[in-house]
Amino acid sequence: MPQLRLALAQVNPRVGDLDGNVELVLDAARQAAADGAHLLVMPEMVLSGYPIEDLAYRASFIAANQERVPRLAARLDDEGLGELVVVVGHLDSAKEHVDTDRLGVPKNAPTNSASVLHRGAVVTRYDKHHLPNYGVFDEFRHFVAGDETQVVQVGGVDVAIAICEDIWQDGPSAAAHAAEAGLLVVLNGSPYEAAKDDSRLELCARRAREGDCALAYVNLVGGQDELVFDGDSLVVDAAGELVARAAQFEPELLVVDLDLPAATAAMPEPGTRFHGLSVHRTVLSSDPVAAFETRPSRVAERWDDLGERYWAIVLGLRDYVRKNGASSVLLGLSGGIDSTLVGAIAVDALGAENVFGVSNPSAWSSEHSRSDAAELARRTGLRLDTVAIAPIFEAYQQALHLDGLAEENLQARIRAVIWMGLSNQHGHLVLACGNKSELATGYSTIYGDAVGAYAPIKDLPKTLVWEVSRWRNAWAQSHGETPPIPENAISKPPSAELRPGQLDSDSLPDYADLDAVLDAYVERDLGSAEVIAEGHDAALVERVITLVDRAEYKRRQYPPGPKVSRRNFGRDRRVPMTNAWRESL
Amino acid sequence: MPQLRLALAQVNPRVGDLDGNVELVLDAARQAAADGAHLLVMPEMVLSGYPIEDLAYRASFIAANQERVPRLAARLDDEGLGELVVVVGHLDSAKEHVDTDRLGVPKNAPTNSASVLHRGAVVTRYDKHHLPNYGVFDEFRHFVAGDETQVVQVGGVDVAIAICEDIWQDGPSAAAHAAEAGLLVVLNGSPYEAAKDDSRLELCARRAREGDCALAYVNLVGGQDELVFDGDSLVVDAAGELVARAAQFEPELLVVDLDLPAATAAMPEPGTRFHGLSVHRTVLSSDPVAAFETRPSRVAERWDDLGERYWAIVLGLRDYVRKNGASSVLLGLSGGIDSTLVGAIAVDALGAENVFGVSNPSAWSSEHSRSDAAELARRTGLRLDTVAIAPIFEAYQQALHLDGLAEENLQARIRAVIWMGLSNQHGHLVLACGNKSELATGYSTIYGDAVGAYAPIKDLPKTLVWEVSRWRNAWAQSHGETPPIPENAISKPPSAELRPGQLDSDSLPDYADLDAVLDAYVERDLGSAEVIAEGHDAALVERVITLVDRAEYKRRQYPPGPKVSRRNFGRDRRVPMTNAWRESL
Repeated sequence: MPQLRLALAQVNPRVGDLDGNVELVLDAARQAAADGAHLLVMPEMVLSGYPIEDLAYRASFIAANQERVPRLAARLDDEGLGELVVVVGHLDSAKEHVDTDRLGVPKNAPTNSASVLHRGAVVTRYDKHHLPNYGVFDEFRHFVAGDETQVVQVGGVDVAIAICEDIWQDGPSAAAHAAEAGLLVVLNGSPYEAAKDDSRLELCARRAREGDCALAYVNLVGGQDELVFDGDSLVVDAAGELVARAAQFEPELLVVDLDLPAATAAMPEPGTRFHGLSVHRTVLSSDPVAAFETRPSRVAERWDDLGERYWAIVLGLRDYVRKNGASSVLLGLSGGIDSTLVGAIAVDALGAENVFGVSNPSAWSSEHSRSDAAELARRTGLRLDTVAIAPIFEAYQQALHLDGLAEENLQARIRAVIWMGLSNQHGHLVLACGNKSELATGYSTIYGDAVGAYAPIKDLPKTLVWEVSRWRNAWAQSHGETPPIPENAISKPPSAELRPGQLDSDSLPDYADLDAVLDAYVERDLGSAEVIAEGHDAALVERVITLVDRAEYKRRQYPPGPKVSRRNFGRDRRVPMTNAWRESL
Repeated sequence: MPQLRLALAQVNPRVGDLDGNVELVLDAARQAAADGAHLLVMPEMVLSGYPIEDLAYRASFIAANQERVPRLAARLDDEGLGELVVVVGHLDSAKEHVDTDRLGVPKNAPTNSASVLHRGAVVTRYDKHHLPNYGVFDEFRHFVAGDETQVVQVGGVDVAIAICEDIWQDGPSAAAHAAEAGLLVVLNGSPYEAAKDDSRLELCARRAREGDCALAYVNLVGGQDELVFDGDSLVVDAAGELVARAAQFEPELLVVDLDLPAATAAMPEPGTRFHGLSVHRTVLSSDPVAAFETRPSRVAERWDDLGERYWAIVLGLRDYVRKNGASSVLLGLSGGIDSTLVGAIAVDALGAENVFGVSNPSAWSSEHSRSDAAELARRTGLRLDTVAIAPIFEAYQQALHLDGLAEENLQARIRAVIWMGLSNQHGHLVLACGNKSELATGYSTIYGDAVGAYAPIKDLPKTLVWEVSRWRNAWAQSHGETPPIPENAISKPPSAELRPGQLDSDSLPDYADLDAVLDAYVERDLGSAEVIAEGHDAALVERVITLVDRAEYKRRQYPPGPKVSRRNFGRDRRVPMTNAWRESL
């Protein structure tokens, strides 16, 4: 059986940084070649970064991407890396035979492509066939689909290529099977999703068994806007058994030695199609590579559910800040658990010297608010400054005489103006500290505590804010470090402290109940009857849905600031103008 | 030749207000029946409102929509309107024969449908075939496509049905032609787009000639979030000649008398498909209606380009406010042309008694700023209050000691906090007054003047702000009314007045040059080389692109406040993390 040493490069590109991303490929190729690899596979769209969304509409951006593929092939060869076969994901434009003369096809017909580079040339190119258009994906909108499967023979082994969604759908793996490939390499830009179990491994194992071939899955790693790519690249054999696996949330070059079947297949008749795909073959080297001694493969340990969430948030924040050209962050530290956890996350992401906390006590702030914020600063080393809001509050009130909720919101907005002023003066990015439970129920102030460039815990319900905080402290303890989060911040009853003696529980149900109903109503989109049928108290369900709907209508009224649109392309999550259609309980 | 009296109901539904929208259909049916109509066609998705975007994912919302269709049919019959054939657009769920067992198909397989109601029953249903997924449309994401064409025989005339995009693509009109329909009725939710000439009429005429049948096009009217539906319903005959046309930007029941060919066609063989569509036929009445005297049809006059823009903005604002459950607005009036025009628009949209202006002079505000704002109030009757910001500014600065841009932004943010405080206290929605040129170049303050529920002129470049202002004044004069906009606000040089003697021209190119380059770079997505090739000065292009890119990166850093997402569904216009890929000039 021929051998192959396969390298999977789990790297962290930056959208639009074409030359920086080319360097990531070159670095991986140098390392793979030095390690004796024969084949290097990079992730989906590594040259452009991913997802590019409507950057796909810019002809000049497509052209800039296309130019870099042959230049990369030439540079690899110039550096003496030409013998290494490199499969690289990039943005391209549909091949001539594809019909793109339809209304709604983006100008220049962009494709999500993978090119094979060898001996200084681009030897063939595969265009993604299945363009996902659900969840966080919008690819059917931005790309044109390919209609070919590419098989390249490397060291006497037939290697088929697929990109991400291609293996979640039928078709490409069937085509690979029909071509009797010995290995299917899959380039991915697959974002982290909480609590999705190990569905990736299960899928890869199933496709490997269906195709009767080994399968190598290489994923991006890193945060890009609201997505976090978690790495977790892996290889399974033709029986679907896990052979190798890379780390989660960290760059890695995963090198794996494989024994693979020799290519013997005749090509399918020209014109034959499998699920709409024609099979194309390119022979790069038909003789097996020189025999080498096989090394054991690494199978990285995986984080548990809370650890996954924590490091996903840390990575997302770090890359958001750095990829956006900043290095430091500023956040309001109230002493409550939300901002305390965000402070600890920011220190893990950026280092204590890049985290600036501001305490903005008001007349209603408790003593423990200040002491808990100070304790976080002491434990983590972040910097804490204090700017009292009372004199500013009085200046506004002399002119406005606000009361009730308007008066509460005023305090939150004064804080936000202070953070943004310091941010403008010193160049820090402001972080918003709201959690998902509070955002969903509208328990926050627009243009107040909701202000910020990035909201690290916006997808964590309050109950998980506590759990993740405890997890972080326990992890520190098990590593002999100081737990960063003051115990009192975790255990005290939550309060917004916008009026005397205020507690969250005055306005909201118990968080455990609230989060369970939010999961059903917001995450799973169930109707009120279905939520009640799951065993929740009808009055509680009515109360939570009323809170969520009211918050949604408020958020609908104040969609965040105007965007520059191309004939109004901007789109947001939709809520009805009224919930009158909902049957009353 | 059989006659038909056809009614097209150009109405203004509200997303989610199912019962309110049912009333719109009933009102139209009463009026159409009273007027002797035989067939009433309502717009696309009139029962749910449009666009519903990801409301399509809520099973309980789909169910609530489905229930209302047979109930509407029964109510029509109960009211003695059962003989009128009513075609009504609504949300439904894919028919059983459609394969929906694919990854990414939305739960419950929502469809964009049109049902035919007659004598108390739902007699047949058509599901939209072409699901647009470009520009402002996302239907491929939210809906499942139908695969049938429906032909109903009314008064001896075969009437085929299509929905909006169906006639922009080939297929449905070919199927209607194959079925030898005498009339093709098209239900639309087609938003206003500036300066698109009369492409709708051209398309309808072309499809009518292709299908050799008359074509009736009925559109929604009204603002819904960032879209404005402009009405403009129309009828062309089989030669493509315009027969009747309804108003733009206003609800209307357009009633048209038509002579149409008698149905004689044999049905196509079962199983025959035209562009993937099978043809289904339902005979409601095969005898021609009793002969009646034909009345002349109305062909409404259309607005010119500036008038279209003005009334589109007025309608968009009015419906945004009302559909969001508010009745009044508050805006900062600086005396500059942007806020002055927005004030005039708000008065046209909501009445002077619902428009509250606030003047927030600072140390740098000029005398004409105050007098121009006062003059607008005098001319239009809107209410003007004054809250000086100097004491508040000083309270902040005693704590923060900001300078430069941070100090300029502080003033803008203090104003925003005042507006939001008054808004919370009194229930007005805050309007943002930024124009497109200033938003595109970042000449505005996030959480400052960018604050607001709605930004009426965010899609108007500055040069058009002046043109539209002059248009509004001229229109007033030609109607013997006082021009609402003080001439000095139009003629004076623009300034943000955030530091002494500041003028826009200190920071920005001449607006005529700026807007021309913005049109090429932002609207048409040209690369820098292409913009220069259009004849613009290279240094100007470089300057504008640098401004736009810098503004985009800033806006990328501070995407508007956190949203509650379903596993991060929220998506925004994409900019690269760097523009390093762009070849230097």
